This record gives sequence, C-alpha cells and structure tokens, in this order.
Amino acid sequence: MNNITMRTKADEAILSALREDITSEDITTNSVMRDFRMGEVELICKEDGVIAGLEVFKRVFELLDKDTEITFFCKDGDTVKKGEKLGVVHGDIRVLLSGERTALNFLQRMSGIATYTRSIADLLKGSKTKLLDTRKTTPNMRVFEKYAVKVGGGYNHRFNLSDGILLKDNHIGAAGGVKEAVKMAKEYAPFVRKIEVEVENIDMLKEALEAGADIIMLDNMSVEDMKEAVRLAAGKAEIECSGNVTKENVAKLTDIGVDYISSGALTHSSPILDLSLKNLHAV
Amino acid sequence: MNNITMRTKADEAILSALREDITSEDITTNSVMRDFRMGEVELICKEDGVIAGLEVFKRVFELLDKDTEITFFCKDGDTVKKGEKLGVVHGDIRVLLSGERTALNFLQRMSGIATYTRSIADLLKGSKTKLLDTRKTTPNMRVFEKYAVKVGGGYNHRFNLSDGILLKDNHIGAAGGVKEAVKMAKEYAPFVRKIEVEVENIDMLKEALEAGADIIMLDNMSVEDMKEAVRLAAGKAEIECSGNVTKENVAKLTDIGVDYISSGALTHSSPILDLSLKNLHAV
Amino acid sequence: MNNITMRTKADEAILSALREDITSEDITTNSVMRDFRMGEVELICKEDGVIAGLEVFKRVFELLDKDTEITFFCKDGDTVKKGEKLGVVHGDIRVLLSGERTALNFLQRMSGIATYTRSIADLLKGSKTKLLDTRKTTPNMRVFEKYAVKVGGGYNHRFNLSDGILLKDNHIGAAGGVKEAVKMAKEYAPFVRKIEVEVENIDMLKEALEAGADIIMLDNMSVEDMKEAVRLAAGKAEIECSGNVTKENVAKLTDIGVDYISSGALTHSSPILDLSLKNLHAV
Amino acid sequence: MNNITMRTKADEAILSALREDITSEDITTNSVMRDFRMGEVELICKEDGVIAGLEVFKRVFELLDKDTEITFFCKDGDTVKKGEKLGVVHGDIRVLLSGERTALNFLQRMSGIATYTRSIADLLKGSKTKLLDTRKTTPNMRVFEKYAVKVGGGYNHRFNLSDGILLKDNHIGAAGGVKEAVKMAKEYAPFVRKIEVEVENIDMLKEALEAGADIIMLDNMSVEDMKEAVRLAAGKAEIECSGNVTKENVAKLTDIGVDYISSGALTHSSPILDLSLKNLHAV
Amino acid sequence: MNNITMRTKADEAILSALREDITSEDITTNSVMRDFRMGEVELICKEDGVIAGLEVFKRVFELLDKDTEITFFCKDGDTVKKGEKLGVVHGDIRVLLSGERTALNFLQRMSGIATYTRSIADLLKGSKTKLLDTRKTTPNMRVFEKYAVKVGGGYNHRFNLSDGILLKDNHIGAAGGVKEAVKMAKEYAPFVRKIEVEVENIDMLKEALEAGADIIMLDNMSVEDMKEAVRLAAGKAEIECSGNVTKENVAKLTDIGVDYISSGALTHSSPILDLSLKNLHAV
Amino acid sequence: MNNITMRTKADEAILSALREDITSEDITTNSVMRDFRMGEVELICKEDGVIAGLEVFKRVFELLDKDTEITFFCKDGDTVKKGEKLGVVHGDIRVLLSGERTALNFLQRMSGIATYTRSIADLLKGSKTKLLDTRKTTPNMRVFEKYAVKVGGGYNHRFNLSDGILLKDNHIGAAGGVKEAVKMAKEYAPFVRKIEVEVENIDMLKEALEAGADIIMLDNMSVEDMKEAVRLAAGKAEIECSGNVTKENVAKLTDIGVDYISSGALTHSSPILDLSLKNLHAV
Repeated sequence: MNNITMRTKADEAILSALREDITSEDITTNSVMRDFRMGEVELICKEDGVIAGLEVFKRVFELLDKDTEITFFCKDGDTVKKGEKLGVVHGDIRVLLSGERTALNFLQRMSGIATYTRSIADLLKGSKTKLLDTRKTTPNMRVFEKYAVKVGGGYNHRFNLSDGILLKDNHIGAAGGVKEAVKMAKEYAPFVRKIEVEVENIDMLKEALEAGADIIMLDNMSVEDMKEAVRLAAGKAEIECSGNVTKENVAKLTDIGVDYISSGALTHSSPILDLSLKNLHAV
Repeated sequence: MNNITMRTKADEAILSALREDITSEDITTNSVMRDFRMGEVELICKEDGVIAGLEVFKRVFELLDKDTEITFFCKDGDTVKKGEKLGVVHGDIRVLLSGERTALNFLQRMSGIATYTRSIADLLKGSKTKLLDTRKTTPNMRVFEKYAVKVGGGYNHRFNLSDGILLKDNHIGAAGGVKEAVKMAKEYAPFVRKIEVEVENIDMLKEALEAGADIIMLDNMSVEDMKEAVRLAAGKAEIECSGNVTKENVAKLTDIGVDYISSGALTHSSPILDLSLKNLHAV
Repeated sequence: MNNITMRTKADEAILSALREDITSEDITTNSVMRDFRMGEVELICKEDGVIAGLEVFKRVFELLDKDTEITFFCKDGDTVKKGEKLGVVHGDIRVLLSGERTALNFLQRMSGIATYTRSIADLLKGSKTKLLDTRKTTPNMRVFEKYAVKVGGGYNHRFNLSDGILLKDNHIGAAGGVKEAVKMAKEYAPFVRKIEVEVENIDMLKEALEAGADIIMLDNMSVEDMKEAVRLAAGKAEIECSGNVTKENVAKLTDIGVDYISSGALTHSSPILDLSLKNLHAV
Repeated sequence: MNNITMRTKADEAILSALREDITSEDITTNSVMRDFRMGEVELICKEDGVIAGLEVFKRVFELLDKDTEITFFCKDGDTVKKGEKLGVVHGDIRVLLSGERTALNFLQRMSGIATYTRSIADLLKGSKTKLLDTRKTTPNMRVFEKYAVKVGGGYNHRFNLSDGILLKDNHIGAAGGVKEAVKMAKEYAPFVRKIEVEVENIDMLKEALEAGADIIMLDNMSVEDMKEAVRLAAGKAEIECSGNVTKENVAKLTDIGVDYISSGALTHSSPILDLSLKNLHAV
Repeated sequence: MNNITMRTKADEAILSALREDITSEDITTNSVMRDFRMGEVELICKEDGVIAGLEVFKRVFELLDKDTEITFFCKDGDTVKKGEKLGVVHGDIRVLLSGERTALNFLQRMSGIATYTRSIADLLKGSKTKLLDTRKTTPNMRVFEKYAVKVGGGYNHRFNLSDGILLKDNHIGAAGGVKEAVKMAKEYAPFVRKIEVEVENIDMLKEALEAGADIIMLDNMSVEDMKEAVRLAAGKAEIECSGNVTKENVAKLTDIGVDYISSGALTHSSPILDLSLKNLHAV
Repeated sequence: MNNITMRTKADEAILSALREDITSEDITTNSVMRDFRMGEVELICKEDGVIAGLEVFKRVFELLDKDTEITFFCKDGDTVKKGEKLGVVHGDIRVLLSGERTALNFLQRMSGIATYTRSIADLLKGSKTKLLDTRKTTPNMRVFEKYAVKVGGGYNHRFNLSDGILLKDNHIGAAGGVKEAVKMAKEYAPFVRKIEVEVENIDMLKEALEAGADIIMLDNMSVEDMKEAVRLAAGKAEIECSGNVTKENVAKLTDIGVDYISSGALTHSSPILDLSLKNLHAV
C-alpha cells in the first residue's frame, strides 16, 4: 500500500478506528503513566503465515505521535514463522500501549487474508488460472482487504459497482436478453470498462460471445459444459468461474482451463493471523 | 440494535459502506434499468445458523430509498435453516440491486459472529461461566460485532480503552506493583469503572485481591492454580480466564468455576453465515 | 442522475454548498420574513440550450425543507428555449429565497456543459466517432459534470485514476517500453480494466497492438499517420484522438475514422446556461 | 491565499478532490512504478494569461507527500506567457504523476478566472469604477474563485448570505416597502453589515437613500436614470450596477460614474488557462 | 432559529452532541426497556428566566426518532416562571430517556444566555444604546449562543473574523497608522463590510473619523473623553464601548450616549437556566 | 490532556472551532499584513485562578502553523495570579492574531471550570468525600470540560450513557422494582460496569444493597436518612449525594460521610477565567 493510498484512503479509516477505541482517553495507561517515557516493544509472530499491512500498522502509531519510529525485519508478502520477531516499535510508551490493539487489529486481519489467499494461490501454480477476490468484503475495509489479497498472490476483481460491469440474470432479464444487455452496457458505461456477463448454459455463453462480452462468468455449470465454454471462448473472451472454491476442488477447476476463479471466502471468512506486541521496556 | 444506536452510530457506517461500493453510480444496473420499476426480492438462508443484524440490513435499503419496505419472517437471535426464507425486500428494483451486496456484507458477518458465539455459549449452559468478547474486532465495526456477540448469547467485555480499566503487566510494571497500580487507577479513572487486573500467579492474585481489584484475569495459569484462584477470590472479585478458547477446552474451564472466559475468535475469526437475495421479480 | 447516486454522492456536495452560502443564516431574508409563508417561484430559461441537473436543483430545496414541491415541465436532455418556463418551486418562501443561488449554481453549470457538449456531439452525428470527456473537471464536481456530459450526448472516459489504465510516455519510460508497460498493467490492475496506451508514432502503435492494448490514444500525429493508425488497429483495438477539439476541426477527425475524440473543454471551459427564478409570489 | 486560509479552508477541499480522483489507488502509476524514485517535472504555461493559485497547486503535492519540494519562478497575479516555465516540482515520481491532474484542475481554473477578470479590470483603469464578483460561483469552490478574482484585479462582493445584506424586490415586497425593509434589516442583522438595496427606478432610489441604505444596486435602468442615480446618491450611498457586463459595454458604465459593476461571468463562465506538467525525469 | 439554519448548521452539532453522549448505546435504558413503549414527559421550568432554544431542544428528539412529537406552551423569548410547564414530549420512552440530557444541555445554556442578556438589556431600555455580544463564545457553539443573545434582546456583533473588520492596535501598528489601516481595509475587504477601528484617545478618534471609519470602538477611555468622542462622531460614525460591562456601570454608559456597549460575559459567563424533564409516564 | 487524546479527540474540535471563526479568511489581519512577519505575544492572567488547557491553547496555533513555538511558565493545575505572565507565543504574526480568540475561548473556559472546581474541592479537604462532575456539560465540549474538572481537583463521574449504569426512578419503574432493575442491568451491560441506583428512601436503599448495587445515589433525603444510608451501605456500596451543592452546604454533606457529592454547576455555570494576549511585537 503506497504512501498516496495511505494519505488519501487509509489515514481516515485508521483515525476513525483509533477514535472507536479511544472515545476520551486510555484510562488504564493514563492512570499509571502520567508522563512521557521512551520505550520499545517487539512485534512477534505467533503462527506461520504471510504478513500484510505493515505500513498500516506503522501508520497507526505515527498518527498518534509522528515521532514514533518503527523498524521492520520483513516486508509485505513475506512468509513469517511462529516466534519470529517481525519488527520493533520505538516511542512514547503511552503511544505504544494505546495504539497496540488498533494496529494489531488491522495487521492481523490483513495478514490472515494474505495467508489464506496464498494457500489457495499456491494450488494454482503452474496453471493459467488466476485467483480473484470479490466484493464480499467487510464494510469500510475494502481497500485494506483487496490489498491483502494481492499480497497473498491473488488478483483483484472490480473494486465496486462503479468501476466494473457484471451483467447477471436480473440485469439480462431487465434488458430483454444477453445481446440487448451487452449493447446497453456498451452504450451506457465508460468505454474503458470491460463487459462481463454471467451465463448459466452454453446457449447464453454463445449469445454473450456474439454480443462482444469481454469476460464470461460461468454460473453453476457441469464440468463438461465448462470445458465446452472454455473451448468456445478461446481467443474471444476470458472465462471466470465463481462459486464455492475449496482447496479440494481447485485442482479440478484449473484442469478445465478457466482463466479465473473467484472466491468470496478470501475476504469474508479468513481467520486472522495471530500476532502480538511483546517485551515492552523503557529505553 | 435499537433505533437510537442506529441513528447515532450505524447510519454513518452504513452510508460510508454504500459510498465504498458506489463511488459514482451502479453502472451495470443503470445501463439496463433507466427507469423506476417496483419489485421484490427474497432473503434466503443458505446454511444453518443464528441470524443477527436484520435492522442493519434493512437500514441499508432505507438509506438508499426511504420508501423501501422490508418484511422479516424471523428476528435477531433466531436459529435459521438452510433454504429458509427470512424476509422480503420490496421497492425500486434499482435500489434492491445496488444495495444488495452492502446489505449482505453486514448481515452475513454479523450472523457469522452470532452463529459461532452461539456454538460456544451453548457449551457453557448449565455452568456459571459466561462467554465474553474482546477488543479484537474489525476496525470500525465494533458496534456491529459486539452486538452480534450478544445476539449469539455472549456478553460484552469493555467497549474500548476509555470505558474499562484492565491493568496488564506493563501497567503494573510502570506503577511499581499490583497494589500501586490499583491505587492509581482508583484515583485516576471515573469511579464508575471496575478495576480489572491481569495476574500470572497466586501471589499476584492475592496482592490484587488485597488492593481491591474488582475482576482478576488469569493469564496462562495451570489448572491447579486456577482452581486455587477461584477459591481465593470467592466473594471478593470475579475471575476471568482469557486465551485460546476452543470447543475442546471449554468444558475444562467451566469445571474450574471461573466467572468468565473471553475469546477474541468470536469477532476476529468467525466465518460468515451464507445468505443471499433470490427471486427478484417485478411486481 | 438517479436516486441512488443522489443519496450516496450528491447529497453531501449539495449540503456542503448550502453551508458555503449560509454560514449562519440568510440575514436578508430573515430580516424581512420572520414567519413561514407559502409561495411559488418559476424557473425560467434565459437563453437557448440543453437542460441538465433538474434532480440536483430539486434536491437543494428538499434538503432545506423536505416539504418543498417542485414540478418540472421538461426533463434532463431536453432542448430549452429563451423565455421558456421550465418548472415551478412551491414551498416556504424563505426556503425558495435561501436556496435559490445554490440551486441555480448547480443547474446553470450542468446545463452549460450539456449545451456545449451537445453542440459538438451534433457535429459527430452520422459518423462512428464518439465524443468523450476527460478528468479535467472542476475539483469535487466530477460526478455532476460527467453526468452533464452524458446528458449532452457525450460519453464518459474513465472516472478517476483508480478505475482506468492509461499508460503515457512517463509510465512507458518507467516500465522500459510499451510492451513491458502493458504487461505490467495487465499483471497489476484489476482484470476488468481495459488497457489504454498513448502513442506518438506508428512504431509505438504497432508495439502497443502486439502487446494487447485495448485502446490506443493518438498523441499529436499527422492526419496521414492517424489514418494509418486506424487501419492498423482495425479489429484489434479502439482508437482515441485527444487534444484541441474545436468545432472547426471535428469534421476532419471524424473523416479519419477514429472511434473516439476526447475534449477537456467540455468540462473545463463551457460557459453556464443562463437560468433564473422569477415571479415569486405568495400562494 | 495565506497559510491560515489554506489550513482551515483549502486543505479539506484539496483532500476531497484527491479522493475524488483516487478512490483506491493510481493503478496506472502503481503498475509500472513499484518503488520510490526521485524526480522532477516542470510547470509550463501554454497560453498567455494571469497566474493564480500557486499555493493551492503546491499544497496538492504536499498533502500527498510532505517532502515534495516546489520552486516557482512567478507569483500569483503575474502575467505569464505561452511557453514560460513557471515552476519545478521535485519529489517521488509517483506523487508527481498521481497529483498532477488535481493540482492542474485547481490552478487552471483559478488562473482562468484571474485572466478573464484582469481583462475586464484593465478596461476600468483610470475610472473610479471597481469590478465586483458575485455569488454565482461553482459549488464548493467559492473560496478559491473569489480569491482568483482578487488576484485578477477585481473586488469581492459579499461572500455568502450570512455576511451581507442585499434587499431585492421580493424582500422589499415582503417588508411592505423600501423604507420598512431597510429598517427591518438594520434592526435584525449584525450592525457591522452594510445595507444594500436593489432599485428599479428613481423613486425607489430616493426612498432607499432616505431610509439610509449604504449601497444601491441599479437594476435594468436607462443610462439617463443611472446618471441621475449617481448624482442623487453622491455622498450618501455607493452605486453598484449589475447585469450583463461585456467588454463592449464597460466603457459606457464607467462614463456614468457608478462605483461598482458586478459580473457573474468572472466566476461562472471564464475558460481555464491552459497549463501543463512537462519534462518529467528522474533525478 | 429557523428551519434553514437548523438544517444547514444545527443538525450537525446536535448529532455530534448525541454521539458524544451515546458512544455505543444507552446501556441503562436498554437494560430495562427492551421494546418500544409510547410515553410522555413534561418540560418543567425550575427557576425564573427567559426561554431560548426550543426548536433545538425539539430537534434533538426528532433526530433520534422522527416520529417524536413535541408541544410547547411557550415560545423563544418568553419569560418563564419556576414551576411552569413549558412543553410535553411524546414518543418512544427510550428516545425520551436517551435524548433528555443532550436536549437539556442545549436548552439550559441557550436559556441561561437569553436570561442574562435580558437582565442587562432591560437596563438599557429608554436609551439609544444597544447591547452587543462578542466572539467570546464557547467553541463550536457560536450559532446557538449568538441566537440566544438576540432572543434575550441583545444584538449581534460580527460573527467571525471573515465577516467584519475590526482594526485594533496591532493592526494599526502594522499598517503604520489609523489612516493607512482604514485605507488598506477598504481596499482589501469586501466592500459590503463596515470598517470598525479601536481607539485609545481623542486624537486617534479624529484620525479614524477622517479616514472614514464606520464604527469607532472606545478602549479604556475616561467618561469625559467618551462624551467628547460621542460628540465628535455624531453623524459620522457609530460609537461602541467595550469592556467590563456590569449591571452597576451600565447606567453610566447609557448616559454618555454611546450607540453600543458590548459584553463578552453574555456568552462566556452566563449561568444556565435550570430546567428539567419530569413526570415520565407511559401512554 | 495527553497527546493521544489531543490527536484523536481534540484536534477535530479545535479545527472545527477555527473554521467557525474563519469562514474564509481573517479580513482584518490580511488587510494590513500581506506578508509573513515573525512576532511574539504574551499570555497574561487577568484574575486569580487555576489554569487548565494549556496544551489545547498551544494546539490551536500549531494547527494553523506547525512552526509556531509556545513557551509556558506554568502548567495545568497551577494557581495563577492577576498580572502573571503565563507564556509566550512565537510565530507568524498573522497566526498569532487569527488564532488568538479561538485559543483563548478554549483556555478561558477550561480554566474557569478548574478554578471553580478547585474552590469547592478545597472545602472537602480532610474529609473522605470526593467531588464529582456530571453529564451537564456544554454540547461537544465534554472531553475538555471533564478534563478541566480533574485539573481542578474534582473527579469524573461517567462520561456518557454508554459507559456507566445509573438506574433512576423511570428505569426502576420500567423494570418493576429496584431488584429487577439491578438484575437486568447486570445481565445486559458489559460486566466491567458498576451499577449505580438512585434511591429516595431507606427502603429503596436496602433493596438496592440487597440486589448488589455498587453505588447508591441519594435523592433529596433528609440529613437523618442520609446518615442512616451511609451506615447501612458501609462496606457494601459507595454513597453519592447529588443535587444543589453550594459552598454553604458542602460542610454539612462531608459531615454526613458520603463518599461522593456531584455538582452540575462545575461545568454548566462556571464563569470563565479572564486571560488575554498582550504586548504583540515583531521580533
């Protein structure tokens, strides 16, 4: 996540999260530490995984106190091991204590998504099939979660309803057919958008290809039909297969030769990666 | 989640989530549906679980169009079954389509938390031990996630750093000892706060009890020591056991007789409950 | 501009504009009208043009007082004539007076853009060439200005830096060449994005086509080269011609057969369409 | 625009404009430039005019990255020539590319207004008549546009409905007459406000003068009547002439001897001044 | 406070105040009232005074629940007596309880200011001298407090630094003298602003009058000098006397014949008017 | 007020207050000081009292210009004397002038509260009774006002409706009795909250003690009953006495031996402490 996205998008969410956790003051810390004292604390990994969100973690402390200094011993996308020391945070001990939970809440979730994504993406290695995320993200966390998917080796599908066309059954019904829907979308939407159409059978797929769809999403089709779809679309459109992607059925999907498989679970059901701040001491 | 919390807290988050998903307009829907058409869509449950967040789901559509009408056939906390029709949303079809993902993203996550919480809380039935959440929530989602925990049969721990005292090793170290830390907290924090102290052994527990701590959190103690802690604290303070709560070890903890067990997993690692909007049709 | 965009995007800008014009109260109106009085005022067209933004105009008054009623005798995109009565606003006279300037500032600007866009788009009629806008919009007014372009018969280019790829010389330089740049963009950006490349000569165009660019923007090329570009790209990519589009040179560009011509002037230099509120009277 | 206005008013608008243009990230730049690289780019003038808004231009880049350094070779209000190098921006190349459009959108519009204002103001030189702006500004851009008018040699009329009294026909009608309206305004509005009254004929003007109006706005009066108005008001009130000010009719208005002429076109219909960033290179 | 100011200015402050008092939910009320129950509560006056802010009080409950109904038996500016029933609030009991404190905090403060202002303004009755407020208001409460001053019979001085000119010693020093300062202000500030100058002696006053100041503020001058000032300024400028206005010295100031006396105490040191909600009962 | 609270809570309020006072620019200062000039001004105490809010005062100037330097000769909680020089502000003279009023408005109010609180708290010295504030604070100023109470030697009661339980007559009525109300609160509210119950007589007090209330608030009871209440609650619950606390009746309340007395006047009716900025000079 580069600095520009950090300033324009992440800062607002981070500050809001800090305000969620500190509605007036950190009464525990302020009870026992009335004055400034410089200290250090270590970021420790508590289970194996892929780290993602280090800049966000860092920014939490910087927004509380711009003089906080953080040194990392790894970078986003690195595989980390249980017990590994990932970084050191150096600054006002009150800042270290008051920012701890918010910083970890971001980093653990993002790393959890990266870790789970990597585990699926690794199964696709060697095939042409790429792993996509969806819009099934936690409300107000999309910019963080989609970034974590990329860190984990996945690819981003559209970001929101405004920047990608996906014509589903209801849209097709409203338009009066696949052909009409594609035509209306090409007429209406910014011309830099690709047109994706969801189809349920080979006839719809043929109609979508003829209409000039750029991407076809296969909905609940048999393996035979999916293979036929890939064959028919070759050189004309890309094929996305959506639905319940599991570690078990990924192999089958790559064999079929689809270009993309998308999985909502990457962002809506990944467990966090366990991390903690340890060994706080004055310096 | 009652109307007052909805107006003062939830509306802002919901509107922000809608803006995250609609940065200019829903180009797909607007391509094919240029005009108002009244329609209906059904909220369908796709796996067994506990529903939570129906008012939030409803509010998403109302914020897009106050004339949207929603009828539910269940209420928060109800057990729902795969295939069950949970409600009907009635309004401008464009509103139904454009609000769908955001509404489901809230409802699925909240129901996922309620479902997982219920599964643990059920194991505590018949014991005196209550299940608590933590501050390990998704950034900016705390008010929704803590509500879901309650719907699932759990209890809320403190909401944030400002409304509860929890003295951990670092605070105790800074104060110069358990006794001093409790004294400083009683002096500094609003007098309506209870004082909780985290202890690592029986000696610290004794010191905390003497100092007048209201709640003692046991950190990584043996079963024998925990039993001794419960015995010593009887009538003087409540005992909370934190840490890796699993379905397997819950039984052991309730046998010890602690008052509370707290689990971060309730909010940070629950998978969502699968739900969807189906059978959209004009009316 | 449909209701969903109005709620999620426009309301915020309208309310902010009202606050810009009313930092405490409308002291003139409040001096002379201490109490509620119902009245009506007419929206009158003062020069020929194309109207755009009626819903925004209406929303200004509704946000001040939800009971304001507005009837329009035309709809967005209609040609309007000097002297024509376009609508009637009915409500608290203080609301009519205090909202007048803000409502007109939106409507006049949007109608000015639609009017100018229409004048250029009309010159393209009968050709395959479409007229595009750019990102040269007034800060914080993009959603209104891009909508006005569509009302005027133009088409939207990308909305912002996040939802479209446009590789210019600096990007190509950084990547090490056209081919590398396209490859990196395909790897990095969400797969639903088309890739557009700006080229300065036929060699670059060939390289871009080979790399699989979806759209080619011709930068400052001769008429001969542009014709050659159109020929080479046929069936492979779309051609956009950018730059100083004037009523005089539009004919030449359409003859060349480019798919799109884009013009910043649509949004950055259109004069407003003169409109006013007249004949206020109590009812 | 001094630093205080920049911090309290402009920063918010600039950040909002950046978020309008970067809803998640600059996908083109981030595709090809994964890492920090220091660079420079030149601000070049592409047509003759008056520059205005340099501090705003600078602030766009600083808000993205506080370490960006900008050197200008001119200052607000200077006449600039086609081809002239106006400044150099030095910093992270990604910042230069991602901030370019937003920075130019502000600077071009403000300079366009200053340029057009200067062209009218120059026609008033040697006369006592001053050129005023109006409230016909782009929504949410008033602080920038009114500043540009001053840079161009114009003067500001009231900023908004709260900081100036202007009694028009509707207000006068509601009050029951000019005299009553002025009296009510003097009673109601903060005493530091001057009272301006719009009059349509000499009788109304006399009544306004008697009532103690500070400023009289002449609405659609004949040259003879305007001359009479100036004569009658001498030493008692200032005279403003509003309406369709053009380069052609300005001379006539100054001959009449009015104190002020106001023109909405300064802010609502000035074309931009063409500027661009050129010669980006690593350093 | 009319509806337009309520929507554009007050709503934001009221909602923010409600969020200050309800960071997640009203845990007391929600503990004992799980469901909707309709009820009524009375607004009772607990000491004699002047009521101000009834619409703000009402709006607090409406923002929590638009169906709340409030009936008042008095209006802003009315004298109210200890024990008097001022109104009835009818709605969801949870709304009545959760909104009570915020609604009273606004109403008590505004009424306190109106009450104190009235007590001073009454002393000025029969004289030409008017009572003014200052900018010494509670941060972020100015729109409410200046309104309350008017309700109490006072008049508003400038609202803020942007809508009024007041040249004090530092400004005069920077300009190089009274004459220069007035000239610079007339040149720079919007022409609808009056120019006020603070003077310390008769010489400065003469200079200010000559320079064309509209208002003269007398700073710490003797009674004799103030009388002379009033005499000299007659017909040329208005005279404001600022400083420690007390009930004791008001008579002396009016005898001198100044046009205005201003008092910071109206807004910064008025005690509240004691009010309460009583006799809550279900209906 | 430490840095963390400043960043997360105070900055927003301070910036908002600056925008309240500067809606476009400080026209007086900008008229006469077009360019940067370094200067200094002194913070002078104009009456005896207790100072509170120095960091907030400082932050006002820093938010306008981060290079402003402030040196204080006292710290929050210090007794200050009329005529004492409390600090020096060093920076751009325009910043010193434009920020003056906002900075003083915060500091004077906070110091006024601290001064009044200290005057009451001093009367409690030597007794076990502590002085509490209430939620009767100025809207949107609670974090500043509750801090000032602590600086003055008082203690904070609950911050808001979400972080403390206080069962009053209406809640008890709704629950069906004291016992039921306490039970419901213990079941519903986060377990870290203490339960406070308001009682009107000895019977209710007994019931509250039996139900396990942590704190009992005595409402309008006789001295005899209050003494009995203190006796009965000893070792079981703390006793708070609320109501019209005056300097006169404080002694009586401490004699009774209540643990706490709470006073709304601390925050709702304290006059400000008079302070000013003097001796501005260029350096």
